[in-house]
Amino acid sequence: MKTLTMDKIVNLCKQYGFVFPGSEIYDGFANTWDFGPVGVELKNNIKKAWWKRFVEEDMNTYGVDAAILMNPKVWEASGHVSSFSDPKMDCKKCKQRFRADNLIEEHSKGEVVAEAMSNEEMEKYVNDNHITCPNCGGFDWTPIKQFKLMFETSRGTVEGEKDAVYLRPETCQGEYVNFLNVQRTMRAKLPFAIAQIGKSFRNEITPGNFLFRTIEFEQMELQKFCHEKDSMNFYNDYKKRALDFVKDLGLSADKLRYHDHDKLAHYAKAACDIQYKFPIGWEELNGIHHRGTWDLSRHAEFSGKKLEYQDPETNEKYIPNVIEYSIGADRLTLAILCEAYEEEKLENDTREVMHFHPALAPYKVAVLPLVKKYHKQKAEELFKLFAKNFMTTYDETGSIGKRYRRQDVIGTPYCITVDDETLNNNTVTIRNRDDMSQITLPVTEAIEFVKDKIEF
Amino acid sequence: MKTLTMDKIVNLCKQYGFVFPGSEIYDGFANTWDFGPVGVELKNNIKKAWWKRFVEEDMNTYGVDAAILMNPKVWEASGHVSSFSDPKMDCKKCKQRFRADNLIEEHSKGEVVAEAMSNEEMEKYVNDNHITCPNCGGFDWTPIKQFKLMFETSRGTVEGEKDAVYLRPETCQGEYVNFLNVQRTMRAKLPFAIAQIGKSFRNEITPGNFLFRTIEFEQMELQKFCHEKDSMNFYNDYKKRALDFVKDLGLSADKLRYHDHDKLAHYAKAACDIQYKFPIGWEELNGIHHRGTWDLSRHAEFSGKKLEYQDPETNEKYIPNVIEYSIGADRLTLAILCEAYEEEKLENDTREVMHFHPALAPYKVAVLPLVKKYHKQKAEELFKLFAKNFMTTYDETGSIGKRYRRQDVIGTPYCITVDDETLNNNTVTIRNRDDMSQITLPVTEAIEFVKDKIEF
Repeated sequence: MKTLTMDKIVNLCKQYGFVFPGSEIYDGFANTWDFGPVGVELKNNIKKAWWKRFVEEDMNTYGVDAAILMNPKVWEASGHVSSFSDPKMDCKKCKQRFRADNLIEEHSKGEVVAEAMSNEEMEKYVNDNHITCPNCGGFDWTPIKQFKLMFETSRGTVEGEKDAVYLRPETCQGEYVNFLNVQRTMRAKLPFAIAQIGKSFRNEITPGNFLFRTIEFEQMELQKFCHEKDSMNFYNDYKKRALDFVKDLGLSADKLRYHDHDKLAHYAKAACDIQYKFPIGWEELNGIHHRGTWDLSRHAEFSGKKLEYQDPETNEKYIPNVIEYSIGADRLTLAILCEAYEEEKLENDTREVMHFHPALAPYKVAVLPLVKKYHKQKAEELFKLFAKNFMTTYDETGSIGKRYRRQDVIGTPYCITVDDETLNNNTVTIRNRDDMSQITLPVTEAIEFVKDKIEF
Repeated sequence: MKTLTMDKIVNLCKQYGFVFPGSEIYDGFANTWDFGPVGVELKNNIKKAWWKRFVEEDMNTYGVDAAILMNPKVWEASGHVSSFSDPKMDCKKCKQRFRADNLIEEHSKGEVVAEAMSNEEMEKYVNDNHITCPNCGGFDWTPIKQFKLMFETSRGTVEGEKDAVYLRPETCQGEYVNFLNVQRTMRAKLPFAIAQIGKSFRNEITPGNFLFRTIEFEQMELQKFCHEKDSMNFYNDYKKRALDFVKDLGLSADKLRYHDHDKLAHYAKAACDIQYKFPIGWEELNGIHHRGTWDLSRHAEFSGKKLEYQDPETNEKYIPNVIEYSIGADRLTLAILCEAYEEEKLENDTREVMHFHPALAPYKVAVLPLVKKYHKQKAEELFKLFAKNFMTTYDETGSIGKRYRRQDVIGTPYCITVDDETLNNNTVTIRNRDDMSQITLPVTEAIEFVKDKIEF
């Protein structure tokens, strides 16, 4: 099989309704992407699978859905107002803006890790190595300035007021500020977790690589609140569960690896990524972080509220430790797309097929009348019946072979052909996407057959 | 039954984990709200029910999930940049900002419809009637200015660039700009619809009434693209389907009514709301609008792309008409909460109960060990089994009666008691939330029993 490139995946996604460039008729916008009819189902199924595994099936995890616009003090407490920024340099010739660390890392082909350098060191490196502007080729840089990564807006409901309001750059603050609310209303005993799926926004200077880095993205994450003595156990537990989850969704073990962090934030006790081997190389898919008592302490300090827990048995009062497990829904969707794709050589043919886990497949079933003239009415009936149970599509145009190929490339696990046998005996032929085998079943059994396969 | 007030619902939502004030530990923020552990499930279930009915079960409807941040030209084409604003007056004494139309309508107790007045007429009315500042009681107003309702931010990735970027004030533009993409990739024939669920943002000067009017809200909406000759049929069809949907979710017919619009936008051919009788009175729950060819024509004009459809049979080429059906997920959640609540007098007791449709209930089942000491282990086993199938909770503290009451008020339709019979015969007692009747079933049948009831 040929190596899968990012361009190939982007084109495939555009061609088959997974993902379109955002605002495409206006020539796009800042690497934003719109999920199309099959993409929205795929992404929703990924989100559902995550929620099922980590919220529904976990007795001690509670979901929330916090507002994107939060009180600006939240971002003072979290440190984002003062220090969430990237080192940027402007090309004086073409006015384009770049991240100094990216310029250096690209120039050195990853040999130099700019993360560890000061602004002065980066400026020196750029000048000493005569790194030119990737846009115009010029070599006339401004000094490095910090570029704020939070999108800023304002309410302006009081005359003259200019208080900044931010689009949240991460969802987890919604859990921290609601720690007491959830603990109280759920009468929750530690250890417990609060989970959330939602959009975040980061004003990245150079977003890119399709869904991998975007200015608007969706996070799936949970914060486990626990006593310090249990915290490393939960950290290791979520490392394992996070890996199991993506494997269970179909990512292969040889494309997944742990990447433990050497450098930690001053408050952190441990941190680890799970990396996936994307077409662009090994990159972060999700993170597990031991954040100590940092977040709750800071919010306690800035809000004046005691964010503590009292153990009902020992009466010990303490600020809980936090283990964070976070995964990008868009990034995971990209990984699933890359993993699922196969250009398969057949005897007399080649087919493109997406081997999605049936639980993730956008359509579970395609209903195909063998001959439109004779079987359309029955097929439409069956569409209605199936669509009551799971996402179903319908296709009546072209040869059966062509229709199979269309379903293969969007990953529909089962094609159901409606023919004379259906009219006479109420049986249907079910064709399997992966091995192209066929079985015949009565209609009612077909529904149960599919339902069983699409479980996660 | 006493009349339900908004305050009562707000308090109940805070007390039982449905909805918390946004950023509450920082004294909230601009009438934002965070959905708590039971609220997020309720709202997700409402969204799922809508998607199932209008996307999954409809052969000719395709979903999308477009980016919130769109190319700013989208909002020029839509007219929002030039004219999406409210008439505001500032109190010179306390600097508070108000909508002139709201001041007039509140002062006249709804007798005067300010919508039809010019700015000059509103200023005159405020002065002639000596309407004072609701905040400080002063009477010293600035002239009316237009207050922009779109939240504005900026990218700033090119030096000196100050181009405004907007938070979308409505989701439907995501469908219009993707009309060609969806039509092409799905090989869709007109008539077909594109549907979306997503967040929108409006910088309302005075948001309020809990979830009813917020600066950040979630829309569920679809745009039906069709030939002009079919358009009124689809308009009427969606009027009916929209009403059926909310009735099927449990809203009662006597609290729902159509409100046809007299005044139409210049491009609109018909428009109608469905109103619900909230505790604050009859208010808009959703809208159905016949928008003619306005939206696609404007985007064609501003983008230079032909947003047309060619009928494959007649070869007629035309810009499709659009029927829009839109409903607020937060507003519908509020209606469902109001409708479901009952303070029920029992023989020796009163209970608070949420009569949610089982498909909408946050938890479908609560697993309750009768005696913790003896039945905890088996109950935890059953939790795991049930939680694989549907959202389940577990409660082991307090008397069974108290535990029933806790589930009643969050609307759990079935309480499953684990007792000696469960240990000996693997049967459980299922208690019904609405009539408090009990039946006994083998565990495996209990799962099928619940699954059947929670269908929508």
